[in-house]
Amino acid sequence: MLPIFGMGANEQCDPEYPRRCVFYVSDGTGVTAQTLGHSLLTQFNRQSFKAARVLPFVDDENKARRAQAEINQSAEDDGVRPIVFSTLVNESLKVIVRDSDAFFLDLLGGFIGTLEKELQQTAGRVRGLAHGASDHDRYMSRIDAVNFALQHDDGLSADGYGRAELILLGVSRVGKTPTCLYLSMQHGLHVANYPFSVEEIQAQRLPPVLRPHRSKLFGLTIQPDRLSQIRSSRKPDSVYASVSQVRAELTGAESLMQVENIAYLDTTLLSIEEIAVIVLQRCGLITESFS
Amino acid sequence: MLPIFGMGANEQCDPEYPRRCVFYVSDGTGVTAQTLGHSLLTQFNRQSFKAARVLPFVDDENKARRAQAEINQSAEDDGVRPIVFSTLVNESLKVIVRDSDAFFLDLLGGFIGTLEKELQQTAGRVRGLAHGASDHDRYMSRIDAVNFALQHDDGLSADGYGRAELILLGVSRVGKTPTCLYLSMQHGLHVANYPFSVEEIQAQRLPPVLRPHRSKLFGLTIQPDRLSQIRSSRKPDSVYASVSQVRAELTGAESLMQVENIAYLDTTLLSIEEIAVIVLQRCGLITESFS
Repeated sequence: MLPIFGMGANEQCDPEYPRRCVFYVSDGTGVTAQTLGHSLLTQFNRQSFKAARVLPFVDDENKARRAQAEINQSAEDDGVRPIVFSTLVNESLKVIVRDSDAFFLDLLGGFIGTLEKELQQTAGRVRGLAHGASDHDRYMSRIDAVNFALQHDDGLSADGYGRAELILLGVSRVGKTPTCLYLSMQHGLHVANYPFSVEEIQAQRLPPVLRPHRSKLFGLTIQPDRLSQIRSSRKPDSVYASVSQVRAELTGAESLMQVENIAYLDTTLLSIEEIAVIVLQRCGLITESFS
Repeated sequence: MLPIFGMGANEQCDPEYPRRCVFYVSDGTGVTAQTLGHSLLTQFNRQSFKAARVLPFVDDENKARRAQAEINQSAEDDGVRPIVFSTLVNESLKVIVRDSDAFFLDLLGGFIGTLEKELQQTAGRVRGLAHGASDHDRYMSRIDAVNFALQHDDGLSADGYGRAELILLGVSRVGKTPTCLYLSMQHGLHVANYPFSVEEIQAQRLPPVLRPHRSKLFGLTIQPDRLSQIRSSRKPDSVYASVSQVRAELTGAESLMQVENIAYLDTTLLSIEEIAVIVLQRCGLITESFS
């Protein structure tokens, strides 16, 4: 196991504070194991952990034994047992991996058992359903949504605004594109984005192309210092990145959105995931149904 | 609660088979709760569930009480208690939501307790760390990676190939762009993609622009019928989408990659997440370290 960056495998660990390896073992992609495992690890001292490795597609006994061997090797190398986050659903594969020299956490097993009682059903215990391609229609609609986001990025085209569930507005580099891509990929939503030009801000009126879609509009804004920093990493020492230019654009865009009664969000301290969830919540798009 | 699509709240449920609502309650974005909850639900009959709703940013007592009220309302409306997946870390907020008329699953609590014993540490129990913007450097490197993917999509530019960790190859619509965007957004990797032209396939030689980056190249391919179907939804009844054209391109591209000794993957039955994990695994990019 080689960390991409950070502490190398052969560096000396403080014996008082052994750094452990973390394994995410899954019969599918490992996305679920990583997501929950990462959430749990954020609650502890980062210095407790050395490197994390995903062992995906562990779906037969040979692969389970290879996973066990790799985990045991890490225990031997590090002098401390690794943490194993497992989402294996097959009982016999789970037993093989659990039998490693590791602290083993079965992320699904306990919950499946209690849900079986509550729902009075036997769980399918079918592997790799969560992030596989088994739901073909849902999959194709996500790909379609990603293509839509790319075709309607940065005001490129207004052709599909009628099909859009949401159109994000704001000045350049405020976070529109990553938010659109995230919403399309994770939620399968058709999201366009439109950058306000300096002329549109000066006019203090909504551009005509946006007017028929007022109910789908949502704005993003950000603190001037932060935007100046972001733009500077793209075009250092430019007027475009100067605090005075950025401040004028942001003040103007916020004023325009207030005049036009468009809701907006300050993204300064927010991650893409947080921006996405808040936008979904404010736009009433946060519920999904089971067809 | 209004489902976006599917069964409406007022439709009659089969009394023998009551459909329950699902709530994901979190003090952060709800991404972790949704990911694990969704994995668990895939193991049961979809017909057991009616609609799912995320209740994010439940980070004070008022919001916890509002969450409780909404959950109780759903129990009353549906005549069956909903399923609540919670990643709340604050004990007093958890008690309020747990006290609803629901089947409550605490996704983190039990694991935090056992990890505390194993690591001989007290968990921080700090909310919203997993998908927040607290790790500023990591966050900026993801945004940078998404911009890189966009700038180097579809052979647009070769300027940054030196900075790329990976360059995906293949014919048009084989899945390169969504895979690049996913890898940049979820893993912060700099991934470019390059579409083989018909001329390059006929020449059966790697285009000069790719030759200095041989170690970063990885190919995607797909079954002809599937690609024809995908291209048809973009350009129906075109030569571009015809099975004969698609078959010639794919056979040629695969042969080129074999001649040039470039590894490639058939994406026909795979989701974006699966393609991403397999590519990372084959390219040895699957380990991350804790700095």
